[in-house]
Amino acid sequence: MSRNSLPLVGVMIGDPAGIGPEVCLRAAASPELKSQCRLVLIGDRAVLGRAAAICGLSMKLLPVDVPDTPVPEDAIGVLDPGTFDATANRFGVASAQAGEAVLQWLRLGEQLGRVGKLQALVLGPMESASMMATGKVQNMDELQPAGTFMLRMSGNLRVIPLTEHVPLSQAIEMVTPERVAHVVRLVDRTFRSWGFARPRIAVAAINPHAMFPEDQDKIAPAVAAARADGIDVQGPLVPDTVFRQTMEGRHDVVVTMFHDQGQIAIKTSAFEGACTVYVGLPFVMLNVPHGTAYDIAGRGVAQHLSMMSAISTAASLASGKSLVP
Amino acid sequence: MSRNSLPLVGVMIGDPAGIGPEVCLRAAASPELKSQCRLVLIGDRAVLGRAAAICGLSMKLLPVDVPDTPVPEDAIGVLDPGTFDATANRFGVASAQAGEAVLQWLRLGEQLGRVGKLQALVLGPMESASMMATGKVQNMDELQPAGTFMLRMSGNLRVIPLTEHVPLSQAIEMVTPERVAHVVRLVDRTFRSWGFARPRIAVAAINPHAMFPEDQDKIAPAVAAARADGIDVQGPLVPDTVFRQTMEGRHDVVVTMFHDQGQIAIKTSAFEGACTVYVGLPFVMLNVPHGTAYDIAGRGVAQHLSMMSAISTAASLASGKSLVP
Repeated sequence: MSRNSLPLVGVMIGDPAGIGPEVCLRAAASPELKSQCRLVLIGDRAVLGRAAAICGLSMKLLPVDVPDTPVPEDAIGVLDPGTFDATANRFGVASAQAGEAVLQWLRLGEQLGRVGKLQALVLGPMESASMMATGKVQNMDELQPAGTFMLRMSGNLRVIPLTEHVPLSQAIEMVTPERVAHVVRLVDRTFRSWGFARPRIAVAAINPHAMFPEDQDKIAPAVAAARADGIDVQGPLVPDTVFRQTMEGRHDVVVTMFHDQGQIAIKTSAFEGACTVYVGLPFVMLNVPHGTAYDIAGRGVAQHLSMMSAISTAASLASGKSLVP
Repeated sequence: MSRNSLPLVGVMIGDPAGIGPEVCLRAAASPELKSQCRLVLIGDRAVLGRAAAICGLSMKLLPVDVPDTPVPEDAIGVLDPGTFDATANRFGVASAQAGEAVLQWLRLGEQLGRVGKLQALVLGPMESASMMATGKVQNMDELQPAGTFMLRMSGNLRVIPLTEHVPLSQAIEMVTPERVAHVVRLVDRTFRSWGFARPRIAVAAINPHAMFPEDQDKIAPAVAAARADGIDVQGPLVPDTVFRQTMEGRHDVVVTMFHDQGQIAIKTSAFEGACTVYVGLPFVMLNVPHGTAYDIAGRGVAQHLSMMSAISTAASLASGKSLVP
């Protein structure tokens, strides 16, 4: 496969005062990823230069205007709007200036993905205090692109909830046949684009042992309609056993009825390399699963394996190789 | 320690047509348990005789009228009301006759526990079809003694929900400061009786990230009141991280707000030797975590490790040794 046919993955470096720039650079320098994708960083070149010095990396940071600009082997392309003043930025300190820059880089990355100039976008760790300080973000949930659903992947356990941060009683009310059907179809389409030939989708019930009429009334019609269209979906399934069954390989993904239903399974099993993918975009966008680690930022000690794993996952999905080993 | 000071554990043999009699006998014959407890079986002697022949066990089955009757080393005492007709019983077939017998054995065991003649009672696997066939049981939930709560233990993860098989929307409504406080105090008292010097109790929130006013309104007052009385309790804690923290040793037990909240964690982590303890009785009562396995009953092939683990757990709790290795 020629390098040009590899997916182009943008990596937004995250909050400049955190470990994002360091882990992004270390991952970009890693030889393991070179066979999987082409990379371009999105962020401030001076911040990245500082991170390179801290990490003892000698790679060239080449300013590029378009993501797919070819760069030499010992260089990495950087998309930098040039509006950030790195001299005023201090490690471990949240600031509106950093928040403004991250917002801008995020929008740039998302825009490039939407128009097909990037096949994937990996988001480095953002700092909510910086984002809030801009006055433009009241709540980190606002950063989730409209109409998307957040798929969590951890080992071979993958879960996608109908709702995120809403009170549980409200989340239950938001379970409707229409919403279930919408997410099932979206997941089927998305997993196919990622290379799953026929995604095996489980839909969790709402109630214990799937034993109440509500489970049949709200979920079964959506499952039946999707099955009639040839989608391999089952449900409502017993919530307390469906995740273990999925880990054992019976399903590719579980559509969950509320946030904690799947998150308890994900965080209790706690595999390495977990990440979150936004489903419902025309490109692959995912979050690295750690924070800015302000306490160790600027010291060159942050480990970059989660970032490498996120980039590798993004590359696999974007190239339609599914995740099957 | 003299044998007479060991806790006396009753083992109800479960449905006669299932694997219960076999696994109970095998466990009773095991030398490992002899240093931990004295055992008495509750069930039909002829059924047990048949199981002994199937398993190739030569121990004597001695009829006893009171649980603490001393028996020789090569014998096991059997409390048998004598009302069951074993000749009519066939392996793998549910029957009202078997259900009636199990109901009677269950009531006998519970009664002996309540009056202090047994320190613990382990329930062998029951068959719901047999129980229902009696016409006296509409639902297995009815067998849960009134006023008790069901603690699930799996590895060092222990969870106890406020409610069992009720619709989730109703379970949320049933979360009140009074109910939370009641369960926290009950758990504290019970764990102390089991040998935990100062049980570390976590209370899970209802909502994602414990981020809604409801979590504070319904849970915080109960936690504050219990803390004022010297109970080591924390909450409302974030539901999707509290179970992992517990597995890592930060808490001894999690009070959960609804059935699946804890069951998803228990069944997804899936340690060996899980069991369910009824909390709120003056003695230790617990369920073995497997069914009657009608398909292999009567063949002498059922493994008895879950039963041994349940008896061992019952003995530890009843002797106030906690579960700390």
